[in-house]
Amino acid sequence: MVNLAETVVDHSNRRDHQSLIAADARHVLHPWADLSALGQAGSLVISEAGGVRVKDADGRSYLDAIGGMWCMTLGYGREELAEAMAEQARQMAYYTPFGDITSEPATRLAEMLAELAPGDINRVHFTTGGSTAVESAIRTAHYFFAAQGRPEKFHVLSRINAYHGGTYLTQSLSGKAADRTHFHYEADFVHHLSSPGYDPDISEISAEERLRQLLDEMEAEIARIGAENIACFIAEPILASGGVLTPPEGYQKATLDLCRKHDILYISDEVVTGFGRLGHFFASEVRFGLAPDMIITAKGLTSGYQPLGAVLISDRISDAISAAAPKDKPVFSNGFTYSGHPVACATAIANIEIMQREDICGHVREVGPYFIDRLRALTDKSIVYTVRGDHLMACVECWTGEEAGPTARNMALAQRVDQYCQEAGLLVRPYENLCILSPPLVITREDIDRIVAILGAALDRATQDLRAGTIG
Amino acid sequence: MVNLAETVVDHSNRRDHQSLIAADARHVLHPWADLSALGQAGSLVISEAGGVRVKDADGRSYLDAIGGMWCMTLGYGREELAEAMAEQARQMAYYTPFGDITSEPATRLAEMLAELAPGDINRVHFTTGGSTAVESAIRTAHYFFAAQGRPEKFHVLSRINAYHGGTYLTQSLSGKAADRTHFHYEADFVHHLSSPGYDPDISEISAEERLRQLLDEMEAEIARIGAENIACFIAEPILASGGVLTPPEGYQKATLDLCRKHDILYISDEVVTGFGRLGHFFASEVRFGLAPDMIITAKGLTSGYQPLGAVLISDRISDAISAAAPKDKPVFSNGFTYSGHPVACATAIANIEIMQREDICGHVREVGPYFIDRLRALTDKSIVYTVRGDHLMACVECWTGEEAGPTARNMALAQRVDQYCQEAGLLVRPYENLCILSPPLVITREDIDRIVAILGAALDRATQDLRAGTIG
Ligand SMILES: Cc1ncc(COP(=O)(O)O)c(C=O)c1O
Ligand SMILES: Cc1ncc(COP(=O)(O)O)c(C=O)c1O
Repeated sequence: MVNLAETVVDHSNRRDHQSLIAADARHVLHPWADLSALGQAGSLVISEAGGVRVKDADGRSYLDAIGGMWCMTLGYGREELAEAMAEQARQMAYYTPFGDITSEPATRLAEMLAELAPGDINRVHFTTGGSTAVESAIRTAHYFFAAQGRPEKFHVLSRINAYHGGTYLTQSLSGKAADRTHFHYEADFVHHLSSPGYDPDISEISAEERLRQLLDEMEAEIARIGAENIACFIAEPILASGGVLTPPEGYQKATLDLCRKHDILYISDEVVTGFGRLGHFFASEVRFGLAPDMIITAKGLTSGYQPLGAVLISDRISDAISAAAPKDKPVFSNGFTYSGHPVACATAIANIEIMQREDICGHVREVGPYFIDRLRALTDKSIVYTVRGDHLMACVECWTGEEAGPTARNMALAQRVDQYCQEAGLLVRPYENLCILSPPLVITREDIDRIVAILGAALDRATQDLRAGTIG
Repeated sequence: MVNLAETVVDHSNRRDHQSLIAADARHVLHPWADLSALGQAGSLVISEAGGVRVKDADGRSYLDAIGGMWCMTLGYGREELAEAMAEQARQMAYYTPFGDITSEPATRLAEMLAELAPGDINRVHFTTGGSTAVESAIRTAHYFFAAQGRPEKFHVLSRINAYHGGTYLTQSLSGKAADRTHFHYEADFVHHLSSPGYDPDISEISAEERLRQLLDEMEAEIARIGAENIACFIAEPILASGGVLTPPEGYQKATLDLCRKHDILYISDEVVTGFGRLGHFFASEVRFGLAPDMIITAKGLTSGYQPLGAVLISDRISDAISAAAPKDKPVFSNGFTYSGHPVACATAIANIEIMQREDICGHVREVGPYFIDRLRALTDKSIVYTVRGDHLMACVECWTGEEAGPTARNMALAQRVDQYCQEAGLLVRPYENLCILSPPLVITREDIDRIVAILGAALDRATQDLRAGTIG
């Protein structure tokens, strides 16, 4: 791994910070941009990076506690990954993956993923990221039933606080209230169950009771819509960007059983929980006892170095769609120009090789509990409502002491914490009244201590601001 | 540019052809796969490439007449592109583009695209490919009207034979009958006008008459749906994968005028026609007199070396959504983890620099008409129904002499032509009864002659088969 200090960067062609910020304001419409500040806002330009640290265009260094965005797993500046992509680009940068044409990297990566995935999951449909993989999984579920003469079985169950992507359908599947804006959303065949998060520290009922409520609701919703109309249920094992929400113990397995009972396919969205964040390549089976029909992967699949996603499909499903496809028109009309891009797949292969060689999953299983323990010590602070997480995904929920949840004042408070973290050289991900943390998987105990120390000091400064009446 | 002959490839870690084919059959579900042959089909494994040629895993060399898939523009093995991606991966492989965070490559590329794009198109929303860019453009049109208090103005006009992508919404926008299978399609707010292709060689009516028909139909359809319910019209200037269909002269501008009259946004899908294929970075204005509200780009944007797409947005639209966004929730909740991926953007910047330095657009304007002329000479052959195209996008339509169009026998005939081309070392893209051609933009006159010679001989062999009764 390259240390930032050791990284040699050619600055000759670099632009100065202010002119970049001006160009960004003038020409870029960012994902999740603040539209009211379009053209004015001064962006943070991240220019260099090494290990678990990034530098902005002014040379300020930050500890990256969000892992790029849940995806930078092996850390920045990995020469081996840069080499893998350049080598593949030299040898064969791209050829169509459509029909019966393939490339060596896509084939080899599919083989590796089939080996890593649980149960009878042995077939891979590549895409360009998480959203396109979720799209393809839902469409595959549609195909599965329609080809077997059940086209009306196309409804989809999702959940409040889920996040499944940025396209029309995947944003409709997502259930974050903060994301519901003036866009249009599909509401005829997409249905949201309650948010299944259960935090024992703040819940007034037991985990068993909450689980029973959730399952009763799911049964009732299936009855209301009619199991004969429902194609699939899609679920993150732990809801990530909805606020690191862990369902009560046993929920994942029980919902799978409910799906099986009603002939509803189960799609496990492991875009965040996969590739080591919970200490395993896939968390579905090892952690939650799940053998889903399809698994979605993206993000850590390439350690964020390349855009890539995939739907991993069980033999049961792929055999069935193959058998049921009409003989006169057997085409699987789904996919993308850049499905299984050779350069992205070569990078993913190198990523998996490094993860295995360095036993990254073992490292996460070791430092993950330490990370959560250290963070939980912050619950002593008065503006911390709760701290929750699992291995290297966690969040600190702030409150002013009045009302819990994403109130305007609680959000302003969390924003202040974020700001103080950034000033002290730590990047955390602000979402509503939460500070979300998902550091690179290679994070050390020393850097975990540093994250917690900076975050703790930022919480103290924000507490003083709250007392001084300068928040909200 | 690296010549294939000069490319030094490390074969030490390479897998043999047969084991790759077996792994592909066992583990990959390809886009547009033949489901009836899942697990059995023997794939063509493309392993090496240089210039305009690719090699399969057995070492057989082919002239690539489809440009990867409309996207490989600068040719294979460009060291400069490989270096650009590796250099960016070393320096800063990824950081979140969400909110107010940006990277140098994304910012610089946005600036370059604003410079290249026509009219007041100055703002860029990056994605991961064509489909996600189309998704984002449609959603932006939805936002535009809903934020201004007109949420019911969300219907979309598209066309039969259009192709706009592989997601739920973009497949629904697409209008290729061949792609309508057992998937589910959105039909409540997506509407298809007639295919606007006009081929003077085979049409029984004049271009003027066809234009009048198309515009009358569009007016009628707008009246039927109600202009007050329609957000946008999406159109490829020349329909690419639908069969290289050029509308009658004046159509693009006249449909734009109709949209303006009814306050309907015009989205020009230049995924294929942009980045040089018609001899310009964007064809909308220079070739078709269009100043659209949004332009979609992907494919040639990176010369296929990296997955990347973008929506280019006019100031009129971006100013309006900025002004209309609600003050208490101004977030543009659209985008992807890998929107504007730094490695992909760095590659796109190098791609544009090479295109400008080598005047690739000028080269296409020079060899493009030659390519079409040479291909049109093939119309003499009895199984060629028609040849059509524009610069470096073209297609040869086959028929047995009985009925025109994608009949089973015509499709079998075109398949045979494709097969003979492949045997002779030329890859063309089979679609229904068409042989589609879109060679890399760096193609020379000599290689154009070679393409036409091989294609001509393949047509002759297929003609003999037809006479011998071995087709269909
Ligand atoms: C659980 C989950 N699914 C899907 C997605 C969408 O992935 P992408 O942004 O790569 O399209 C995300 C992105 O954050 C995610 O967290
Ligand atoms: C005109 C057009 N638009 C959109 C797309 C979708 O692009 P992608 O396959 O990169 O998602 C394509 C792909 O062929 C296309 O030809």
